Amino acid sequence: MLPGAALRVRTSKLWGAMADRIWTAALLVIGDEILSGRTQDKNVGQIALWLNIQGIRLKEVRVVADEMAAIGDAVTALRAGYDYLFTTGGIGPTHDDITVDAIAAALGLPVVVDDRARAILEAHYAARGGVTEARLRMARVPEGASLIENPMSGAPGIKIGNIHVLAGVPHIAAMMLESLTGKLEGGQPVVSATIGAHAPESEVADMLAATERAHEGCQIGSYPFFRDGSVGANFVIRSTDEARLAACEEDLARRLIALGYDPVAGGI
Amino acid sequence: MLPGAALRVRTSKLWGAMADRIWTAALLVIGDEILSGRTQDKNVGQIALWLNIQGIRLKEVRVVADEMAAIGDAVTALRAGYDYLFTTGGIGPTHDDITVDAIAAALGLPVVVDDRARAILEAHYAARGGVTEARLRMARVPEGASLIENPMSGAPGIKIGNIHVLAGVPHIAAMMLESLTGKLEGGQPVVSATIGAHAPESEVADMLAATERAHEGCQIGSYPFFRDGSVGANFVIRSTDEARLAACEEDLARRLIALGYDPVAGGI
Repeated sequence: MLPGAALRVRTSKLWGAMADRIWTAALLVIGDEILSGRTQDKNVGQIALWLNIQGIRLKEVRVVADEMAAIGDAVTALRAGYDYLFTTGGIGPTHDDITVDAIAAALGLPVVVDDRARAILEAHYAARGGVTEARLRMARVPEGASLIENPMSGAPGIKIGNIHVLAGVPHIAAMMLESLTGKLEGGQPVVSATIGAHAPESEVADMLAATERAHEGCQIGSYPFFRDGSVGANFVIRSTDEARLAACEEDLARRLIALGYDPVAGGI
Repeated sequence: MLPGAALRVRTSKLWGAMADRIWTAALLVIGDEILSGRTQDKNVGQIALWLNIQGIRLKEVRVVADEMAAIGDAVTALRAGYDYLFTTGGIGPTHDDITVDAIAAALGLPVVVDDRARAILEAHYAARGGVTEARLRMARVPEGASLIENPMSGAPGIKIGNIHVLAGVPHIAAMMLESLTGKLEGGQPVVSATIGAHAPESEVADMLAATERAHEGCQIGSYPFFRDGSVGANFVIRSTDEARLAACEEDLARRLIALGYDPVAGGI
């Protein structure tokens, strides 16, 4: 055996193990406006989809009020429980923007004005009256943080440890995600296929469970609908393996036909 | 002093204290479909608004996957941390519907088939082939639970202790809320007023903080927008006291005018 052979085998096994590793994230949505019902959240969906493309699974979301203790408790639990923690909201210039203070307190770090962030704000506001004390609030970070670029409104996002602090305004959050694209370590993205049928869930429940059991590495979710007097469900198959997904999808369609239903690829 | 007078005073003081008490709730959204980004949640907003009418404040939302441990951990934390816990999702007939099992496990209770729920399902499915084993899954409850009526699809919601288990399909959840209306103890609902202005947040940040400080019992949230090349914010004042709210609203409008902005009642 050549000296390198054993090493190559080991490397390949290690690579296999790393590719199989599931990378996880939590999202903390900070804001009274979601909890009061005034504003419909739009960040959960876009962050979930973006994370999946990075090979990271969103495993938990929490929404808390603009309160130091509530934010701090959630940060402490979520940064320890998942590979990544994302937060949205509470990083503007007003008195209710306390995300940076709450995260710094949870980490036991002082809040400092970041020189690069201050320079970004000075350039952004040069033609708009300069950097006032309120605007300078947006350059405050927990000590040791790095910045997440925001080409839109100047004020940057913040990265400290595994915590990524994003804006609450959805299209600014989207731009911050864009500047993070490809920069986070992840695993295999989850691929999915949807089949719809005008089948009452309770008529196909046993078949669905049996189909899932027959296809290792695939999960089937069932999402009922009641529309225009019509009852049915969409079945979403998820896997990290394209071939397994395709086999499960074909089998599920066949089993639906056997029960007398008409499967609709892509869902209803 | 008449014998009843002291009692009346005490009663009235007690009533005052109870009216001031803030009743809190958490919502646990159960479902892979929200975490994958496939489905946009619609329950947070409707439950938040409904709770406020009952005089109960939604203080925290968590979204977790269809996994026993994730649901159980969240139930254990949230039922202890708030006056009420609501859950949505995972109470249908399919294999991924494990909410009842997870809650029962978290409470250390066995799962039993509820006779009233079974009777409701038998009546509902009488003309649709009767109650199959899969359908009977929807009559399973943690031992000692009571039912929450669901005029829509037969399968009831569940109340066990301070936990209220609702359907995930938004209009079925809405009907279950309807049947709970007026039945939960609560305090004063929060009233709110919104003023919009084409003012960059950073230009009014100090004024907002000063206005909030000047009006006890009022909170001001600031929600920036960037639309059609226009920058501005909506300021939402919240209070449990109508008179204080009106005074703060008038003062904020006056202060915006003093800074050269045109306040828009109701928001922009």
